[in-house]
Amino acid sequence: MMGGNVFFKAENLQKVGAFKARGAVNSLQKLSEEERKKGVATHSSGNHGQALAWAARELGIPATVVVPSNAPSVKVEAMKGYGADVIFCEPTLEARESTLANVLQKTGGIEIHPYNQVGTIEGQSTCAQEILEQCPEVDVIFCPLGGGGLLSGTLLATRDHKAEVYGVEPEMADDGLQSLRAGKIIPSVNPNTMADGLKTSLGSLTFPIISEHVKDIFTASEDDIVKWTRWMWMRTKMVIEPSAAVGIAAAANHSHLIKGKNTVIILTGGNVDIAKMASHF
Amino acid sequence: MMGGNVFFKAENLQKVGAFKARGAVNSLQKLSEEERKKGVATHSSGNHGQALAWAARELGIPATVVVPSNAPSVKVEAMKGYGADVIFCEPTLEARESTLANVLQKTGGIEIHPYNQVGTIEGQSTCAQEILEQCPEVDVIFCPLGGGGLLSGTLLATRDHKAEVYGVEPEMADDGLQSLRAGKIIPSVNPNTMADGLKTSLGSLTFPIISEHVKDIFTASEDDIVKWTRWMWMRTKMVIEPSAAVGIAAAANHSHLIKGKNTVIILTGGNVDIAKMASHF
Repeated sequence: MMGGNVFFKAENLQKVGAFKARGAVNSLQKLSEEERKKGVATHSSGNHGQALAWAARELGIPATVVVPSNAPSVKVEAMKGYGADVIFCEPTLEARESTLANVLQKTGGIEIHPYNQVGTIEGQSTCAQEILEQCPEVDVIFCPLGGGGLLSGTLLATRDHKAEVYGVEPEMADDGLQSLRAGKIIPSVNPNTMADGLKTSLGSLTFPIISEHVKDIFTASEDDIVKWTRWMWMRTKMVIEPSAAVGIAAAANHSHLIKGKNTVIILTGGNVDIAKMASHF
Repeated sequence: MMGGNVFFKAENLQKVGAFKARGAVNSLQKLSEEERKKGVATHSSGNHGQALAWAARELGIPATVVVPSNAPSVKVEAMKGYGADVIFCEPTLEARESTLANVLQKTGGIEIHPYNQVGTIEGQSTCAQEILEQCPEVDVIFCPLGGGGLLSGTLLATRDHKAEVYGVEPEMADDGLQSLRAGKIIPSVNPNTMADGLKTSLGSLTFPIISEHVKDIFTASEDDIVKWTRWMWMRTKMVIEPSAAVGIAAAANHSHLIKGKNTVIILTGGNVDIAKMASHF
């Protein structure tokens, strides 16, 4: 159908159902005994919050997650299930950051950033490290792009490999493409996309890495996001979240780039409000 | 959660998304060149029809499928997609059989029965043959029960193995349990269950095999079918059809039977109208 070999890196089958487990574990493992006692906190639309809550529970560290009020309930439930304190805020980057600043001031805890932190990027890079081990002949990688933690890690891990790495983001949250074109970070303002994991804007650490190494950035329409999420559920029997569908949409829409090649599409996760998503099918 | 090791035999990942591919392929491979030319026909609520349509296309044999009018549209679409002729009838066993008889009279074709045929049962038995290869230490197998093709094949394949095999059917289509108790076939009359793959009644070939070899037959409520279908979608990120959830419900409700043991639950398939199913979650 795609004109070449297409492999999925199925991070929907990862711990907590998303690649974010990688960054959270790595960040917490780097903390000193003293820092662990103070606890950790973050802001997250869902998957990073779940990942931090899970990793913190595993290591016995108190965790607080600041969550935008439009985050999927299934992700919020999971964070609470892992024992994290959940605090809601307005769905803007400003509200998330100011609410988190208040939490950190009160608790004296350590911030674990969802993407703009060395430990997080290092952790996310293990995804592409595994791709190179599992599929060393990979020619092309499609990687979803939100805040850029996964894409930065993927670009760093594949720096010395022939694979061309494309970032993919929703048309409705195309701050990555805009930033790349402008040569500076152009933040998303309250973006409205089904791909809730990709609403965040690039950070000061991720933007330079992406600018330097990414082959190109593609966008996926909301229609395509629904179409390919449904297709995956129906044809592969795998539940993916809409954020995971953008790479498939890009591969289908740019098949000339992957014809006769070995392509890996990173599926970011599978945490989705199933009934709500299926109502779009 | 279950108190022992639980493995899934994931027939939702099988060709055409259901174990029925096994029986259809085996039945068609047994036909002579002369018989193949006449074409094949069957009646099916969905998965067997898809499987026959697919296997017939692979072998270049014309196929007709008689489908009850309440069959899931996704399955009917798939049959047509594989190139089969689809003929609708009332959702009763009598209507299915009389409509099929008309088709066979007109075409002179061969009937491939969904379950009550040696070739079909032989084919379905390969599922349990693989279970014994993949999980030789299996103690308990839960196998969904509709017409009894898969359960008969499973019982025959495990005859000389220690594994205890339980059949599981919906409470709303408990003809298997009733037949076992009565010592004769008690057909279902227009059963109303979400597990559309398990509405069929036992056959003259499957009933004696099941009577002789099955350890017991359990039933699953509609609430449990919804609960475990949702659980599988959410927690394992695997789309299963409601018929595939009955074995999980039985395992959860009879955990004393599987405590400390190695249990295999056969997931019959993953062909389901996703939006309709998710509306029950």
